[in-house]
Amino acid sequence: MASDAPAQTRVTRKICAAIKDQITSGLLGPGARLPSTRSLAAEWGVSRTTVTAAYEQLIAEGYLETRHGARTQVAQGLGLAPALDSQAGCSVTPDRLSAYGQRLADFPLLPVSCRPRLMADFRYGDLAAEDFPMLAWRKAVGTALLRRHGRLRYGDPRGSSDLRAALQGYLWRARGLRCEPERIIVVNGSQQGLDLCARLLLDPGNQAVMENPGYNLAHQIFLAAGADVIPVTVDQEGMRTDCLPSARLAYVTPSHQFPLGSVMSAARRQDLLAWAQRIGAYVIEDDYDSEYRFDIAPIPPLQALDHAGRVIYLGTVSKTLSPTLRLGYLVVPASLSEVFAKAKRLADRHTPSLEQEAMAELIGNGAYERHVRRMRRRNGERRVALLSAVSAFLGDIVTVVGADAGLHIVLWLNHVPKGQEDAVIARALEAGIGVYPVSPLYAPASADTRPDRAGLVMGYASLDVRAINRGVQTLREVLEALNTEIGASNRQ
Amino acid sequence: MASDAPAQTRVTRKICAAIKDQITSGLLGPGARLPSTRSLAAEWGVSRTTVTAAYEQLIAEGYLETRHGARTQVAQGLGLAPALDSQAGCSVTPDRLSAYGQRLADFPLLPVSCRPRLMADFRYGDLAAEDFPMLAWRKAVGTALLRRHGRLRYGDPRGSSDLRAALQGYLWRARGLRCEPERIIVVNGSQQGLDLCARLLLDPGNQAVMENPGYNLAHQIFLAAGADVIPVTVDQEGMRTDCLPSARLAYVTPSHQFPLGSVMSAARRQDLLAWAQRIGAYVIEDDYDSEYRFDIAPIPPLQALDHAGRVIYLGTVSKTLSPTLRLGYLVVPASLSEVFAKAKRLADRHTPSLEQEAMAELIGNGAYERHVRRMRRRNGERRVALLSAVSAFLGDIVTVVGADAGLHIVLWLNHVPKGQEDAVIARALEAGIGVYPVSPLYAPASADTRPDRAGLVMGYASLDVRAINRGVQTLREVLEALNTEIGASNRQ
Repeated sequence: MASDAPAQTRVTRKICAAIKDQITSGLLGPGARLPSTRSLAAEWGVSRTTVTAAYEQLIAEGYLETRHGARTQVAQGLGLAPALDSQAGCSVTPDRLSAYGQRLADFPLLPVSCRPRLMADFRYGDLAAEDFPMLAWRKAVGTALLRRHGRLRYGDPRGSSDLRAALQGYLWRARGLRCEPERIIVVNGSQQGLDLCARLLLDPGNQAVMENPGYNLAHQIFLAAGADVIPVTVDQEGMRTDCLPSARLAYVTPSHQFPLGSVMSAARRQDLLAWAQRIGAYVIEDDYDSEYRFDIAPIPPLQALDHAGRVIYLGTVSKTLSPTLRLGYLVVPASLSEVFAKAKRLADRHTPSLEQEAMAELIGNGAYERHVRRMRRRNGERRVALLSAVSAFLGDIVTVVGADAGLHIVLWLNHVPKGQEDAVIARALEAGIGVYPVSPLYAPASADTRPDRAGLVMGYASLDVRAINRGVQTLREVLEALNTEIGASNRQ
Repeated sequence: MASDAPAQTRVTRKICAAIKDQITSGLLGPGARLPSTRSLAAEWGVSRTTVTAAYEQLIAEGYLETRHGARTQVAQGLGLAPALDSQAGCSVTPDRLSAYGQRLADFPLLPVSCRPRLMADFRYGDLAAEDFPMLAWRKAVGTALLRRHGRLRYGDPRGSSDLRAALQGYLWRARGLRCEPERIIVVNGSQQGLDLCARLLLDPGNQAVMENPGYNLAHQIFLAAGADVIPVTVDQEGMRTDCLPSARLAYVTPSHQFPLGSVMSAARRQDLLAWAQRIGAYVIEDDYDSEYRFDIAPIPPLQALDHAGRVIYLGTVSKTLSPTLRLGYLVVPASLSEVFAKAKRLADRHTPSLEQEAMAELIGNGAYERHVRRMRRRNGERRVALLSAVSAFLGDIVTVVGADAGLHIVLWLNHVPKGQEDAVIARALEAGIGVYPVSPLYAPASADTRPDRAGLVMGYASLDVRAINRGVQTLREVLEALNTEIGASNRQ
């Protein structure tokens, strides 16, 4: 066939050139399947004959091949030049960035996780895929899809009214939090909620108070906004409130301090609200994992104590359903409701509708709260397994903090100096377990307020009991080997 | 049962008080269903007996009622005080906003669409729900769900590697656009793509060039960033490039100018790129509806002509699948890839994973391109119906522009002065049809560059042929009545 191809038309030649270009530039590698002739013909607005002629020409030239009955593909044996960048001569450093862009350009780009499969990965924030309520979610998505009729159009920037009504009820039942649906803004996870707060409330040079240690991505958001971040020490009663500086806002995790796990005491809550009211600051209450509390009574949110409209409450389903859904919600003071709606609209119009409708259905039919209870039970079992393993294998070479609530604990390594944290993590990785340092969660210049020991943040929500046990046992071996070396080098 | 309820415990009293509080504040209205006793018991960490006792007490007091076999609900006949705002004494004007927040606060909050059901709504951007490829999408979502295993964790801020690989192929096949997957950033619709551009590239006081008339939400984003927006006149060859001012960026719609529908000529494309390269500006190419072209050949994007790394290409599925999915993509110069990834991560970590995986599946199995062809055919039919109806019913009282591509046309009303635009829209609404003004798409101080006539932007992608016909016929009646009045008042 290839040899008696029709005389090449101009279009055939263009198609040939475009495909060769893709192949020589490396965009289509050996074995890559070409589009069907029908599909390419439709895209170019030409007849299938023209595309077939181009394919046949390229087969004749050895660029493409076709096997019995299969789609045309790039010839397997084709020797290729290394992939060309079409803008190879261009600068690789970004130019002409805004001040925001310049601040961001200086941040490290965290590599996308490409760790080898680990025996046990204690990464905080991960959930087990088998915990996702697949059937209930698919059913809820199906119900939401079937309800659609008429037209597809942009939705309310605050979020679907069904979801906001469902969240109003859920927040009251689960958290004793009372609000009108107009004050709820559905966002793409708590990250977007925080980002909107920073955009709307912080100018470059403003001060923002944060717990120390605290959530590093909140820290990055405030720094990116150009704010001066003022770290405030955390102890067993949560963030200290006896010397709060003047600031535009404070970011806190009162239900379960991240990462150390303390619960903010009633007295400090009152202090914090009084401070905010006195100086006109806002308090961002990140209630990121309050669904998980084990031996303690539920703790009402700061939001429920706020009668002055200074608290912005932030919730998420990242710890109950999945971090990949990107669903969270803000409850803002009535005075801020409109400006948050405007900011959300400009940021991305609204959160995807189908997820919102499915979530409303899941809350409305009771499946969400049943799922949360099941997750609390399962994670309670993981927690017990972790605490038992830590007690059995690590004993008093570690100190555990923050185990009353949430999905992680902090392990202080009593005999490992702070400077050895990275060594512990590297050796644990070699031994097949993922553990994560506490140091990056401390403000850089806060050496006086943190222990001299190395510390690890250990998330357990994605692990089964067997992996938890093997992981902790391996950590013990890693620490023993390291302690022996430290001892040996001290003796030298 | 209610009368012989057990002696109230402290917790029972607290539950009663909380429910009464919800009822008296209007949060739970008459007939609202209470949570099941099991669910409330789990949330409060108490026995079901305790909750049952509380419900029975409230039934006895007349707050709640229960019907045979049904869930307990708020008594239907309950006379309620008007809903209380728990922060009723607080300020309703937002205080302590950032400069960004203050600019936003001054923008109008567009009301959420709550128009009555219209006979024909020509709102641009809406799609017909029945055009959504429900089966293919559900299948793709199902496939994506089944592929999950291991753990749920935050993904790559640039987007899933499967989707970016699929988009790379699609963009080449459909648009002749060549890029490495590292330069693709998956975003929540083109709105977020634009917002990221503004954040990363514009400081307050910078200049941004926009087409005039142009896309109003792009205009708002640039104003919100504090930029000076410089409107540049559009004619039959797209945006004029003979007197481009110095600026940080230009926002253009070269494939199908929004709203007037012209295609930017090759000479102007070269001029625009030369300008950008000369002064180091970026060009944002919004390719929002290039899938729809009717009697004209495909137009390669500006991006394909750019060898200097100055073009940021912006695409979306809002016009092919649904605006409610919130899926779009940026193709950025290699030098900007990292800083965009950082900004996307801080903005909301990443776009929801399931949508991304389903979209990758839809492109990979060919269903997306088949769907696009089907949509092109269906919208082509709607377009023919609209143009025929306009020609039949409106004749030379209107001038049609921008009908070669896209999903809307602009109708200039030859005998209606600009000042009567709002009257046309109000009367059309009374008559049951939704039409939308062209005026808000013009820069405020650009009276000299726009026609003196009233103009309408008419989207047709959500309408069936019957609605299109009835809508245009009704518009004719509206215009006739208005013209008679205008004539009468001119004669007086």
